[in-house]
Amino acid sequence: MDQLEEKTLHSEKLFEGRIIELYLEDVELPNGKTSKREIIKHPGAVAIIAITDENKMVMVRQYRKAMEKILVEIPAGKLEKGEKAMVTAKRELQEETGYTCDELEPLISFYTSPGFADELVHLFITKGLRKDTEEHQLDEDEFVELLEVTLEEALELIEKKDIYDAKTAYAVQYWQMKTLLGK
Amino acid sequence: MDQLEEKTLHSEKLFEGRIIELYLEDVELPNGKTSKREIIKHPGAVAIIAITDENKMVMVRQYRKAMEKILVEIPAGKLEKGEKAMVTAKRELQEETGYTCDELEPLISFYTSPGFADELVHLFITKGLRKDTEEHQLDEDEFVELLEVTLEEALELIEKKDIYDAKTAYAVQYWQMKTLLGK
Repeated sequence: MDQLEEKTLHSEKLFEGRIIELYLEDVELPNGKTSKREIIKHPGAVAIIAITDENKMVMVRQYRKAMEKILVEIPAGKLEKGEKAMVTAKRELQEETGYTCDELEPLISFYTSPGFADELVHLFITKGLRKDTEEHQLDEDEFVELLEVTLEEALELIEKKDIYDAKTAYAVQYWQMKTLLGK
Repeated sequence: MDQLEEKTLHSEKLFEGRIIELYLEDVELPNGKTSKREIIKHPGAVAIIAITDENKMVMVRQYRKAMEKILVEIPAGKLEKGEKAMVTAKRELQEETGYTCDELEPLISFYTSPGFADELVHLFITKGLRKDTEEHQLDEDEFVELLEVTLEEALELIEKKDIYDAKTAYAVQYWQMKTLLGK
């Protein structure tokens, strides 16, 4: 056992919701003392970097109840049980934006809040992006507005805190780096 | 009211821990229907990009119980009530790494998991970084190992999924962009 590890002494599930589960755990620390850990289990999520032929990034505006704010984010969605991340990503892109693509390339995956949650976000980039002619279909409790922004507009949205979340900040920085390098 | 907003019909606090609180809310959707929202309240956090005179980024290795994994992350910590983010950042840097700095420049702030949590991370960059001669002091339930890595090593750690969280991925990408641009 690595000297940093914590041993689970007791784990209790306090809540099981539609999306998250809450556990309260007693752990033994590396120095032999005990402590409590508050842990959120989450199914994980996907997010998609989609840049159009006009060199605009596809974004969605949506209300986020946790912050009581409307945020501009890249298209994203929760993983469904047993579904591969790439399949979820293709579906969420289509549902939220009406865009489809030939291919989705995995860029990076990261935990969003390692201090208390196990949510892992898988970030993809589209290849062969095109607007679907069919109407897109949202989940019944999902309301989003489609947005297509230039890099300059995306940087302004960060400045204005309309873009205000980690995955979208990462995506815009990635786009900025590629653009500055002329790729 | 913006047409995307959700109205709170009822909010119940189901858990109040040392770090997080869990709320279950009934909301009225833009179409008049109702839905439930599972929401985590978190005090927010700081994270610090600290690059040494030898052009290495200061990182910490630590066990993360939510994932049951050891991750390599940039120094970070929870906001204390009533404390300014910059003060927390200076303290956490010193406590976790033994480094101090003349100045901390705000780089960006972002919500980590806007779908279910209000955790906001404030990212800072150090100016005038120096190793403190005094021993650093950790919280009694905190065990971390100091690491200093080159950009190449950081990119390898991402490849190996030792660096595996959003704020550190953002920080390394920022460093990579600045390096590629020769800044």
